[in-house]
Amino acid sequence: MKRTLISLADGRDLIYYDESDDSDRSAVDKRDLPPPPPASEIRYDPVLDEWVAVAAHRQERTFLPPQNECPLCPSRPGHLTEIPADSYHVAVFENRFPSFSDRLTGEIADADGILAGARHGFGRCEVVCFTADHDSTFGALTPSRVRTVMEAWADRTADLSALPGVEQVFCFENRGEEIGVTLHHPHGQIYAYPFITPRTRRMLGSARRHAEDAGGNLFADLLAAERSVGDRVVVSNEHWTGYVPRAARWPFEVHIFPHRRVPDLPALTDAERDAFGPLYLDLLRRLDGLFGTPMPYIAAWHQAPVRADRDLAYLHLQLFSIRRAPGKLKYLAGSESAMGVFVNDLRPEDAARMLRESGS
Amino acid sequence: MKRTLISLADGRDLIYYDESDDSDRSAVDKRDLPPPPPASEIRYDPVLDEWVAVAAHRQERTFLPPQNECPLCPSRPGHLTEIPADSYHVAVFENRFPSFSDRLTGEIADADGILAGARHGFGRCEVVCFTADHDSTFGALTPSRVRTVMEAWADRTADLSALPGVEQVFCFENRGEEIGVTLHHPHGQIYAYPFITPRTRRMLGSARRHAEDAGGNLFADLLAAERSVGDRVVVSNEHWTGYVPRAARWPFEVHIFPHRRVPDLPALTDAERDAFGPLYLDLLRRLDGLFGTPMPYIAAWHQAPVRADRDLAYLHLQLFSIRRAPGKLKYLAGSESAMGVFVNDLRPEDAARMLRESGS
Repeated sequence: MKRTLISLADGRDLIYYDESDDSDRSAVDKRDLPPPPPASEIRYDPVLDEWVAVAAHRQERTFLPPQNECPLCPSRPGHLTEIPADSYHVAVFENRFPSFSDRLTGEIADADGILAGARHGFGRCEVVCFTADHDSTFGALTPSRVRTVMEAWADRTADLSALPGVEQVFCFENRGEEIGVTLHHPHGQIYAYPFITPRTRRMLGSARRHAEDAGGNLFADLLAAERSVGDRVVVSNEHWTGYVPRAARWPFEVHIFPHRRVPDLPALTDAERDAFGPLYLDLLRRLDGLFGTPMPYIAAWHQAPVRADRDLAYLHLQLFSIRRAPGKLKYLAGSESAMGVFVNDLRPEDAARMLRESGS
Repeated sequence: MKRTLISLADGRDLIYYDESDDSDRSAVDKRDLPPPPPASEIRYDPVLDEWVAVAAHRQERTFLPPQNECPLCPSRPGHLTEIPADSYHVAVFENRFPSFSDRLTGEIADADGILAGARHGFGRCEVVCFTADHDSTFGALTPSRVRTVMEAWADRTADLSALPGVEQVFCFENRGEEIGVTLHHPHGQIYAYPFITPRTRRMLGSARRHAEDAGGNLFADLLAAERSVGDRVVVSNEHWTGYVPRAARWPFEVHIFPHRRVPDLPALTDAERDAFGPLYLDLLRRLDGLFGTPMPYIAAWHQAPVRADRDLAYLHLQLFSIRRAPGKLKYLAGSESAMGVFVNDLRPEDAARMLRESGS
């Protein structure tokens, strides 16, 4: 794999990940771009003990452009995009409308007393283009392309983890307008956060209590129990198993774990990386096969924080869809959004069975 | 106010709250209904240390019926609804498709070891009809009707709090198809949970730490600070203040507190109840006036748990909308749904100013 770093017209980084060494990556970004927006602000919420990002400039981000204005397609005469080359395999670049950024300009006005707690939203937000083919999907990639995407995720995780203020790196894909996607071109994102995220904090708190009480690793023990019971397992091979958690929150939710506990994507072996693509592509085909319509989904890599509790964490991919039936979505309404109580309309065992039988 | 309890054809409770004593509430539910579904199941998630409800029967719930089949309209010849009377002021009844129920039938199969933790989803789910007028909205109610709704909320909170296994009562309104509402008739809901909800646990944990560290009540100190700073205050009167929190998660989010700390709705005085309606109606008008289109929103009453930490809690209404601009919604995508990190595209100070200037 060949890695080429270039600068876009406004100074943002772009990295090509090429499957062959003969690609020409000399194309220059000729656009006339304004400077990137300043970093967002993060504010501390003393009620929920969490940081919230305020990124007002994101109101202006590109919203469902027509295909001939897609900013993620390769550049062509008359249409210059975020990617100067006329083709690419996988390309990663800094988001033009980032929620977190290391371009710290301007002052952040903090407050006094109980309202204190405001600082620059330091970090990075990157876009990962999976293919130059605008009309493709992640599920339609070849296993070797998924392998290239994994290399990009692992490489970016390692690079972003080395930034001084970054505490956690999150690789994910949002798919489908129903879930808020504003660009149709197949792509994912990477967020490098300046704090450990709320969900990760809670997961690691549970893992710490479990280690103290039971002596084992929470995630490893759950994976072993699910593999032993078996009725919620959807896919598995030599290195990975995907199962619907017994207390799944979403109508279709699958957690995919490598059989060997590793903290993050860079720690995966070549054999583990090779084995992921076929299993995940099989799962995505089953998901889209459920109702004969492309499923909106979120695919979220849970990685260990950069410098805390790496011995408790266990890399896994959380894949979930908000579609509960043809034409019906699961919404986060009062109980979920205001109280944090999820009501799942589908039994996890039924969801697992439907996924196992899908496309068979 | 006159309160009349009747039984629906399948044994569910219905309560009329009437603004005059002369209403005839003798109408009988003549429908031929199947028995209510069994209670859901709640399952413990050891990773996030939370209970999740699994209510498979809810897949079949009524979904966006045409107006002439609305189950919340008064009954009329040829169309028998959930409400036998031919008119009503406010009516509350047990949800036919409840997430939680006290009709415990069937066995719940628990598991062993790390997968253990499953029991009946004991509790109650009720529907609150705000008006017999199908085409109205909460914001179009009169202040005296809002007062009647408050009486119903307080009465139901007291009653449901007395059920032996209920730990928290949650009164709320989901408004708008964009937020998942499946019935257009103006209505809210009440959930009586068999546990303290995750968000409430976190809020009370913060309040406990604040009381130990600073000596005061977290919510009272925040309210005082926001009233003192003032630039995020949207509405206020003698008894109530509504402000946009400094670390708001949603584009438009207002927290409304009574000036006197009370644990829950039943603890409000008559004067406090009288003062709420005009202030809240003003706020809803401002919200709908922002973009000249009805705003989808969730309105959530945060009440103290039934028997824990009532000295730390502080009743308040959390009102928030997912609309961030005309034609654009805020979605909970990867960062919010998988990591719990909210990114707000609107500065809370700007949201407060927009609401203050709305309709002026």
